[in-house]
Order: sequence, then structure tokens, then C-alpha cells
Amino acid sequence: MNLTLLNRAGARNPSSVLDGFNAADSVEFLNGRPSGEAVTILGHLPLPRAAEILSQPELERAPDLLSALPDAKATRLLAALADDRAADVVGGMNVAHRAAILRRLAPPARAAIEKLLAYPEGTAGAIMTAAFIAVPETATVGETLALVRRGDGRQAVYAVAILDAPGGRLLRMATLRGLISAAPDDSVLAAAPDADPVSVVPLTPREDVARLIRRHDLLALPVVDADRHVLGLVAVDDVIDALIAEQTEDVHKFGGMGALDQPYSRVGFLPMIGKRAGWLSVLFLSEMLTASAMQHYSDELEKAVVLTLFIPLIMSSGGNSGSQATSLLVRSLALGEVRLRDWWRVALREMPTGIVLGAILGCIGVLRIAVWQYAGLFDYGPHWELIALTVAAALVGIVTFGSLAGSMLPFALKALRFDPANASAPFVATLVDVTGLVIYFSIATLILRGTVL
Amino acid sequence: MNLTLLNRAGARNPSSVLDGFNAADSVEFLNGRPSGEAVTILGHLPLPRAAEILSQPELERAPDLLSALPDAKATRLLAALADDRAADVVGGMNVAHRAAILRRLAPPARAAIEKLLAYPEGTAGAIMTAAFIAVPETATVGETLALVRRGDGRQAVYAVAILDAPGGRLLRMATLRGLISAAPDDSVLAAAPDADPVSVVPLTPREDVARLIRRHDLLALPVVDADRHVLGLVAVDDVIDALIAEQTEDVHKFGGMGALDQPYSRVGFLPMIGKRAGWLSVLFLSEMLTASAMQHYSDELEKAVVLTLFIPLIMSSGGNSGSQATSLLVRSLALGEVRLRDWWRVALREMPTGIVLGAILGCIGVLRIAVWQYAGLFDYGPHWELIALTVAAALVGIVTFGSLAGSMLPFALKALRFDPANASAPFVATLVDVTGLVIYFSIATLILRGTVL
Repeated sequence: MNLTLLNRAGARNPSSVLDGFNAADSVEFLNGRPSGEAVTILGHLPLPRAAEILSQPELERAPDLLSALPDAKATRLLAALADDRAADVVGGMNVAHRAAILRRLAPPARAAIEKLLAYPEGTAGAIMTAAFIAVPETATVGETLALVRRGDGRQAVYAVAILDAPGGRLLRMATLRGLISAAPDDSVLAAAPDADPVSVVPLTPREDVARLIRRHDLLALPVVDADRHVLGLVAVDDVIDALIAEQTEDVHKFGGMGALDQPYSRVGFLPMIGKRAGWLSVLFLSEMLTASAMQHYSDELEKAVVLTLFIPLIMSSGGNSGSQATSLLVRSLALGEVRLRDWWRVALREMPTGIVLGAILGCIGVLRIAVWQYAGLFDYGPHWELIALTVAAALVGIVTFGSLAGSMLPFALKALRFDPANASAPFVATLVDVTGLVIYFSIATLILRGTVL
Repeated sequence: MNLTLLNRAGARNPSSVLDGFNAADSVEFLNGRPSGEAVTILGHLPLPRAAEILSQPELERAPDLLSALPDAKATRLLAALADDRAADVVGGMNVAHRAAILRRLAPPARAAIEKLLAYPEGTAGAIMTAAFIAVPETATVGETLALVRRGDGRQAVYAVAILDAPGGRLLRMATLRGLISAAPDDSVLAAAPDADPVSVVPLTPREDVARLIRRHDLLALPVVDADRHVLGLVAVDDVIDALIAEQTEDVHKFGGMGALDQPYSRVGFLPMIGKRAGWLSVLFLSEMLTASAMQHYSDELEKAVVLTLFIPLIMSSGGNSGSQATSLLVRSLALGEVRLRDWWRVALREMPTGIVLGAILGCIGVLRIAVWQYAGLFDYGPHWELIALTVAAALVGIVTFGSLAGSMLPFALKALRFDPANASAPFVATLVDVTGLVIYFSIATLILRGTVL
């Protein structure tokens, strides 16, 4: 398709290049063009088509594109978007552009967007839509279906909120399937047998929203205030977007960097340095403790340089076992398989696991040293058996410590009310490295005193 | 709720403990009980209720529970499940149980499940349902709605496939919203304006299915054979399950271990050791190259033990920058933001990024050595400025190499047709460690020859 795309770029009428493309393909095409050209194309498209394209969360630079369009066009485009998407786009604009375009919107639309903008990112409030269909409990199925039919098409309708007649509070949720299956003259309650539907508040984290939608197989989850008045609905497609964003954030964090909120190729050189240098420097500063630890043992090092040969090997094993344990527990906590109060159960389990894993590596290590010694590949000195024993014992100690530290770190973060996903592999490795050196040299002093040391 | 759950465990009638619980809560309760008790409770529940609980993918040990039920009950339960879930459950049984229960099923149900079992895990075929609603293009909207109404409730209906009249090939997809909005006497085609709907084949990877469903905001995606006959539909909730499974797998892999297919607390001690020891040993064996590299430079080490002090610091910086770059590119490739052919563009970008990041760390390193030297905290010898220069130059070289290697590894895996998500942080660190040592000692030889060395 990309050849076609390139050829089309030469066409005469700026917007005709998108003729015959569906929204997803148009987005892909616009993402690949310079900003100026994308603005020209969007500006020449008929309004409903431009709005359809702007509705796609995959469209990159949407806030910039909208800011660059003529004021009147931009305002009409924004008004044609679903309010949750409109809030997303406006939220990405700089303050001046944001204020200007909001001022030009009709007051109700503006109020709806400003309300959504006020909810922190990553919460149900920020991803819900306030444009949903609600009916009083006295409505019939036929009346409700008529409302669905009349919907303005800006918002996919997955479910209808049923409110109690005097208070307007959430009573039940009716699915389209339920409405279709009931008779038109039935009460709308007949189409929604479940009393007490699952709901969340605006500040519920989006991961919890995703978990509830998945757990109860919902297409839309109502967001309510303290009085159970419905503020909006989170639809299943918004949750998929949220899950993917969450996943990207988690992988970036686990890799030891600030999460990027834009695709790799869109992030400028200096912002990218900024995202990476911060954590890298923090890790570097912490890792300097290893230099201090080594300095502390410099007398031992002078006497037994042979000990230094295994430092990288031993340290990396601690980091690797820690990284495994962290990745395990980060996910288990995120999925709710393990809770904060289970920390000691996990610790009691990681301890023997670490010992066994360390013993396995220790055996391999002893074997390696013995083979090299006997084969004459390297001479570890007259006390090579003691050196091998030191390496093996240190591996058991360090892998056990790595497994323990790596598994407890996500719990510690959660207890401190941080996201456990902030426990990155480099962070664990750094934590384990310093202690690993101390363990190694302590064991060496213990075993080698009087012989090598 | 958990207190209530515990108290309920003491009730008389085994199945009455679940009275008033919805399916999700029942699943949570059963997950917390020993297998024997869970089987007793399931066995005493009315069939539709037991089937509803068994339908939840969150129910742990489902294959074991079903295997432990009396044959007749197990067979009837399995027959009451949607075929995709039935295939999941049967797929988890051991071969003998699987064959026995399939033999007792009615031939059509058995054939449907066996067909699903034949598709490899992680593909559209394995997560689709074959129990969907399809109508010929000659049907009316009213007739189609009647079919939806008559549906057996085992499967959530999100969309209806419209087939061409003579061939039975996929023509369009109608959503429930579209059906509701059209007049009952209209042709069903009026409810589905989009000709040429998006579809996949059974072997399409589930990540691609998720991406398409997200990109086109679908509730159900048809799976077709080479002749465009519809084999099944993948529903949006199956995709959420698949996304979460994928995410867990990716995090485990990035942490450097085989993916677990069960929750942390359900995996036995020895299987857990097995999952972790394999990769840990492979990494350990590769990391042994660091010992060989160190041995190669043992003469230099004897002469300048001061060099060893910075080995952990320098190596970990290479590993950390590599881990950052890998996490960035793994996600960019997974989201399709960057493609295989962009590898050199990424390399050209990571090179200067690595140089700048390395220079930042290098400055911090020089500062650290100078402060310690001037403050009299440690004596790095008469040539300490040259040592500091060596450390700084090595950091630039190693961080640049780390960024390059870390960013190219996901491309290399993709080119070799592996999942780029297999590029784990420990794997990158190991890759970078050995080269890092060689870079460090080469630079040291260059700068320090004639003075320290």
C-alpha cells in the first residue's frame, strides 16, 4: 500500500489524495506526511470526513494539526468530535491555543470538555465520555431503542444507563442485545435484569477500569459520583487504548526510563536525551556505591587480583535473578493475583527458590573453574579450590539476595503508594550490585583468610 | 467482602456458599478454596450457574476442576460452554482426560472444539468463536434481529456476518447498533453500509487481531478462510484477554524468563525453578565470557588494580543504556511505529544519543574521582587524571555501544522471525557486559600505556 500512498501524494486537489481510503488508512497516510501538508489536506476535507479522521487516537500530532487550521474550521471540527476525544486533543495543545479554541466553542460543549480535562490522566474520568444515552426507569424498551436510533453518531453506543425516576441515580445498565431481545412495550427494566450494576468513580485508575470491564465482560462501564449520578461511560474501545498505553508505559519503565507519550520517531533528539539521561544518571550515581565498596576492599584486591575475574559474572547473576523476580511480581500485583499483604508469603517462597537457583549457577561456576584449571587454560593459583568454593558460595548468597530484593521491591513501591511497575530491571540490578559486592568480599574474607588473603 | 467469603465457607449445602454472588465474585471465591472443595461446590450448582462460572477465563484450575467432576456432569457442563472457552478448558486437560471427555460430547460440538484446538496458541483461530450469527444478503433487518433474539446466550453477540447468497462468503458485517437503527423491512445490507469489511485468517497473530480491532473500533472481527468463508468471530472481550496475556508474557520475557501461563502463586516450586533456571543458566554461561575477558587482561589488572574499582560502574551503565534502548524499540516495533526497514534510521539516531548520554555520565564520573582525590577520601595514584579520563572515555564508548546494541537487538530478532519481545533486559546486559570490558581495557591500554600500565 505504501507505494500507492506515495504516488497519491502527487495528486492535484490536496484532499483528493485520501479518496477511497477508510479512516484508518487516512490516518496512516497523514502520519507519514509533513505537518504542513497534513494540515492542508485536513483543511480541504469535508467536515464529517475530517472529524472522522481526527477521531482516531492513532492520528499523531492531532493537537498541532488542529491548532494550525483556520480558527472557524478548527472550532467546527472540535465540536464534531466526541467529547472524550475532543478533551484528548485540546489537552495536547499549548495553553494559549487551548484557551482560544475553548472560548469559541458553544458553552455546553466547552463545559463538557473542561470537565474531562480536569480529571488526572490515567483515571476513569479522563477516558470516559459524557455523551451517553440515559433513560428513566419508567421508559419502555421501544422508547429506549428510539433514542439509540436517534443518537448523533459521534459516539458508539454500547449500553444505555437506566436511572431511578425521582433521583436520576444509576439503577441498571441495559445492553443493546438486551434491548433487542425484549418486547418493545416492555419496561426498559425487563431488558436489564441485573440490579446493582458495576460502576467506578472518576478517579478510579484506568487499569482497574480495564480489569472490571474484563472481569464482568462489559462493553461500557458507568462512572458515577458519590450520589450515584452518572457522569459518563467508559467504553470497551477506550479501555483497549488505555491498556495499550499502559503496557507501553510499563515496558518503558521496566527498561529504566521515563515513559514516552509519543511514538519513538516523533520524539525530538533533546527530549529523548532528557527522558533517558535522568534515570541513567540516578542509576549511575547509585552504582557509584560499587566503586566505594571496591575501594573498601582494595587491600584484598591487591592481594588477590584473581578475585576480580569473577566480579562481573557474579554481579550480573544477582541482577538477572532480581530482574526475573521483579518482572514476575510486577505482573502478579498488576493482575491482582498477589496482594500487598501476601509479601511475606512471597518472601518465604523466593528465599528457597533463590538458594536453589544460586546453587545451580554455583555448580556451573565450580565446573568452569575446575575445567580451566585442569586443562591449563588459566592458572587460578595453588588455592584454586578455595577460589571456586568462594565463587559458588557467593553465587548462592547473591542470587538469593537478588530474588528476595527483586520480589520485595514491587511490594515496597506499592506500600509507598507508587505504581509497582516503576520497579525497573536496571533499578533492581543497581540495588543488587552493591550488596552483591559486599556479599562476595565477605565470603572471600571468610574462606580465603590465611591462604590467599 | 473477604470476611464474608470466609464466613460463608462454613455453610451447610456445598453450593449455597455462592448464593447471591455474581459470576465474577464466585470465581474469586472458588480460586481461593482448595481444589477438592471447589469441585464439590461446582458439582452441586445448577448447570446454568456452573456453566456461567466455568465460562470466566479468570477461573483458575478450570481444566482440573472439570476433570475431577463426575463424567456425566462434566460432559453436560462442557456442552453448555461457548466453544472457544470449551476449547480453552479442554486444551488444559491431560491427554487421557481430554480424549475421554471429547468422546462423550455430541459429534458436532466435538468437531467444533477439535477444530479450535488445532489452531496454534496465540493466533486468531485459537481465540475465535465458531458460534456466531450469520445471515444471507437476502435477509431483512427484522429477520436478522429475530435470530439475535433467539441466540442461545452462550455467546455474547456483538455483530452479525452477512454472507453472499450463492457462495456463503463474507460480504459485510452488521453491528447491533446498525440493525437497531435500520427499519425492520429493510434489507440487512442497509444496516451494514461498509462493503469489504476487515477480516483476518486463522493464523493471524493475536497482537495483529488486537491492533485491527482497536484501529477500526470493532466489537467483533471475522476470521475467514482463503475463499472468504467465515470460520468464526473474535470478540472484543477475547481481545482484551489476549492483550493482557500478551502483556504478562512480554514483561516476563523482558525480565529474562520463560513466560508463566499460570498465576505466580499457582506455579509449583520445581516448575518455577525450571522456568527461571534455564534462562539464568544461559545468561550465566554467556556471562562467563567476562571472566575470560578479565583473564585476558590479568597482566594489566595486576599492574593497575585501581582499574578494577570502576568495572561494576562502567559495566552497569552499558547494561542500563542498553535496557532503555531495548524497551523503547520493543514497544515501537510491537505498535508498528517503527518497521524492520527503519533499522538504520534508528541506528543513526541511537549513535549520537548514546554519545551524549555517555558524555553526561562521563562528566559525573570525572567529577566523582576528582572530588574523592582532592578531599582525600581515596588515593587513585599519581596518574589519577589519566584514570579519570579513561573512565570517562570508556563510559562514552560503552553507553554508545549499549544504546546501539540494545536498539538493534529487537530488529535482529524480528529479522530472524522471532518476537522482538524476546529481547530481555538481562540478555542485553550480558551482550553489553563482555564488549564493555573489552572497550574499557582497550581504552585503558591506549591512555595509560607508559604510566600506570
